[in-house]
Amino acid sequence: MADSSSAQRIVAGLRTWILTAAPGAQLPSTRTLVAQYGASPVTVQKALRTLGSLGLVESRPGAGTFVRARSATRPHDYAWQTAALGAPRSIPPMSAALRAVPDDMIALHAGYPDRDLLPSRLVRAAFARAARSEAALSRSPAAGLPDLRAWFAAELGEAAPFGVAPPAPADVVILPGSQSGLSTAFRALVGPGQPLLMESPTYWGAILAAAQAGVQVIPVPSGSLGPDPAEVARAFESTGARAFYAQPTFANPTGAQWSRTRADQILETVRRYGAFLIEDDWAHDFGIAGTPEPLAARDDSGHVVYLRSLTKSVSPSVRVAGIIARGPARERLLADFQASSVYVSGVLQAAALDVVTQPAWQTHLRSLRGQLGTRRDLLVDALQEYAPLVQLDAVPRGGLNLWGRLPDATDVTRFARECENAGVRVAPGTEWFPAEQTGAYLRLNYSGPNPGSFAEGARIIGQTLEQHRQD
Amino acid sequence: MADSSSAQRIVAGLRTWILTAAPGAQLPSTRTLVAQYGASPVTVQKALRTLGSLGLVESRPGAGTFVRARSATRPHDYAWQTAALGAPRSIPPMSAALRAVPDDMIALHAGYPDRDLLPSRLVRAAFARAARSEAALSRSPAAGLPDLRAWFAAELGEAAPFGVAPPAPADVVILPGSQSGLSTAFRALVGPGQPLLMESPTYWGAILAAAQAGVQVIPVPSGSLGPDPAEVARAFESTGARAFYAQPTFANPTGAQWSRTRADQILETVRRYGAFLIEDDWAHDFGIAGTPEPLAARDDSGHVVYLRSLTKSVSPSVRVAGIIARGPARERLLADFQASSVYVSGVLQAAALDVVTQPAWQTHLRSLRGQLGTRRDLLVDALQEYAPLVQLDAVPRGGLNLWGRLPDATDVTRFARECENAGVRVAPGTEWFPAEQTGAYLRLNYSGPNPGSFAEGARIIGQTLEQHRQD
Repeated sequence: MADSSSAQRIVAGLRTWILTAAPGAQLPSTRTLVAQYGASPVTVQKALRTLGSLGLVESRPGAGTFVRARSATRPHDYAWQTAALGAPRSIPPMSAALRAVPDDMIALHAGYPDRDLLPSRLVRAAFARAARSEAALSRSPAAGLPDLRAWFAAELGEAAPFGVAPPAPADVVILPGSQSGLSTAFRALVGPGQPLLMESPTYWGAILAAAQAGVQVIPVPSGSLGPDPAEVARAFESTGARAFYAQPTFANPTGAQWSRTRADQILETVRRYGAFLIEDDWAHDFGIAGTPEPLAARDDSGHVVYLRSLTKSVSPSVRVAGIIARGPARERLLADFQASSVYVSGVLQAAALDVVTQPAWQTHLRSLRGQLGTRRDLLVDALQEYAPLVQLDAVPRGGLNLWGRLPDATDVTRFARECENAGVRVAPGTEWFPAEQTGAYLRLNYSGPNPGSFAEGARIIGQTLEQHRQD
Repeated sequence: MADSSSAQRIVAGLRTWILTAAPGAQLPSTRTLVAQYGASPVTVQKALRTLGSLGLVESRPGAGTFVRARSATRPHDYAWQTAALGAPRSIPPMSAALRAVPDDMIALHAGYPDRDLLPSRLVRAAFARAARSEAALSRSPAAGLPDLRAWFAAELGEAAPFGVAPPAPADVVILPGSQSGLSTAFRALVGPGQPLLMESPTYWGAILAAAQAGVQVIPVPSGSLGPDPAEVARAFESTGARAFYAQPTFANPTGAQWSRTRADQILETVRRYGAFLIEDDWAHDFGIAGTPEPLAARDDSGHVVYLRSLTKSVSPSVRVAGIIARGPARERLLADFQASSVYVSGVLQAAALDVVTQPAWQTHLRSLRGQLGTRRDLLVDALQEYAPLVQLDAVPRGGLNLWGRLPDATDVTRFARECENAGVRVAPGTEWFPAEQTGAYLRLNYSGPNPGSFAEGARIIGQTLEQHRQD
């Protein structure tokens, strides 16, 4: 293997050499460089490739490596692309929740659980087994590996009450992550220009996927109890929409969990309007009090299309989700997915199935629930003590986030920037609103690195808020 | 680990038991089943889960497992979905090239190289290393792992002539396979309702992606030499299109490789019309005489958008492709990709990079070229001997396919079915035409399993063709 740090050293040395060399000058031979830097030929080759990819040198097979003409001598003009591309469609920028942070920053903004909360040992062992398995060298069937489809169907089926037919493995399509699932669901079940009801606020990834699919978003107000069924009915009635995207369990960002009564009312409304409920069960593994019951388990009429991802709870590198739908909807979803992806890597599917069928996975989930509960309480307590102006409408019973309301006049974007300057990264609530925000909110994630810093984070938020109000 | 065949035996036994049991009846306990079948508790649990996923039993935690009410007592009516979904958009069905075949069938239809042609040892070792690496548990940056982006840029840059600036790593976006790349390119660079030039015939996956993106396909005739530059110019002129999708090197299905002169003329035409050439270099690793030079290497004006996948040459489970674009086009591609996928699994990226940076990868490619050459010649010779009515306009110098023309009156769909009945699967050429077919064609893949059967395959094709003509 090439040694990365040696290669970097050679790159740095040769960059200086190149700066003073004439364009077209030949670099010392690999043999000379090996001797000069005390590195292996592989490492020298790696360094030369890096210089090549930086546009500083070019290699001519059989002749050697040469200093390139400075590309700065001819600046590129891509202005013609402006006409070829036309005006951009308005796709919102990516969420701040995806930003990486320096190590010394207290990170309350993230969307993914910290490494400490992942089943690391299980994931590594699963990938190692997948590397030796048939999956490493074969093409997965289009709809996914049969055993993994059966697992998704069985998991949902376990929650089905007596008398409701559980989904069959054939009702499952495996997708490369939930974002892909949202794109496919909105394109296949709604379509460009057609109305789609969405909670407001709701998951930014869904807002993004809706914009990309070109659907017409119809926001339905939602709070710590979920949306009002009467509002849902009015939105269906007035727009003729045939689909409602929602997160009934530990919604991102509000943490709302629909009560059984509310869920039944909304399910009934969806059925009355001959519509789909696209249930995004993103936090299925993040119930603090226990595993939540999906709405989809109580529907066998094909009205609920169920999306369940393993990426956040298993590993960010296991980009695998299942979508469960019955009837013609399933055919539409599969056709759309195939046209955009053909199939999902069998290694990812085999690794996902391996992890979730280990007995240790259940042990991990129990431990995870405890840790999430502790972390949530730590952050709630810290906010109450150090940042009492941050108002929590409810303490969520699962998920990864608190949804805190700030005093009405707060400019949340500026406030988030001020927090960052003071050493805490928070996510301004604006990203979760498909329409105008109805208040000044922060989303605070309690699954990030170093929960020991939550108290300090809350103190900085509290102080910054005091200063912000005085400005 | 659960034993699959034991679990199947238990499933079979219990199915019989369930058929005669009343709905709601309790199954024997796990302990009883362990004793009865002489299997481990894990195996019994696996069997019960399978029965659960089949909808035959349900488990109630703490109580046991029970026979479900027959779902057949209430057939489902999904007819309401017909109204909710509306008329389907016309997306063509998936290609026959994706179909699996029984072991005793001679397979000349496939789109993926046989296992024998993959660098199996490298792939397994790469996945094993990725399982131990940082990539197994972390989220990849949105545009891809920096080292893999640098590799894609360097590979293309190596072919750049003196004076043409090579692409930078920042110009590369990593995608989960080339189908996803086609979808993203057509959505981001063309857009719904806008014209896109495509060769006819061309890759069925591109026809599918174009239909899904809702672009207006403008077919440009292409043959064994590639498209006529004057036809390309006329198509740009008459439609106002700003993009041309093409496979300049070993096109699928024709095998055409554009001459240097033709490539320059088409590049010049593309520039004159302020357009993009979306170069799909699908067969980069399948050059029989040597590694082909992409057109993109000779363009630094941002007109060529370059798509390069590793899935077919590394492993079907390594769903990784790179798209290289400069200027605003790259931003559009990245925004579209992120909205539909967020990022590609780091394990797949790490494994791909590991394989292609091993010295053994170059050895593998050399051996692969030799094998493809031998297989191609074997199939060409067999066709000439046993199926002289199949006319090859040219013998391709790379790629995986022969494109054979049948006598004009042949009904290729029926003919393909007749071949299949006789033991050979072939792909009817119709799937590769975005417009009407201009002749009766077969695509014959020489990279499938068991080249020893090519002669027999050709003999069956020849015989079937004789019979077909006499019918």
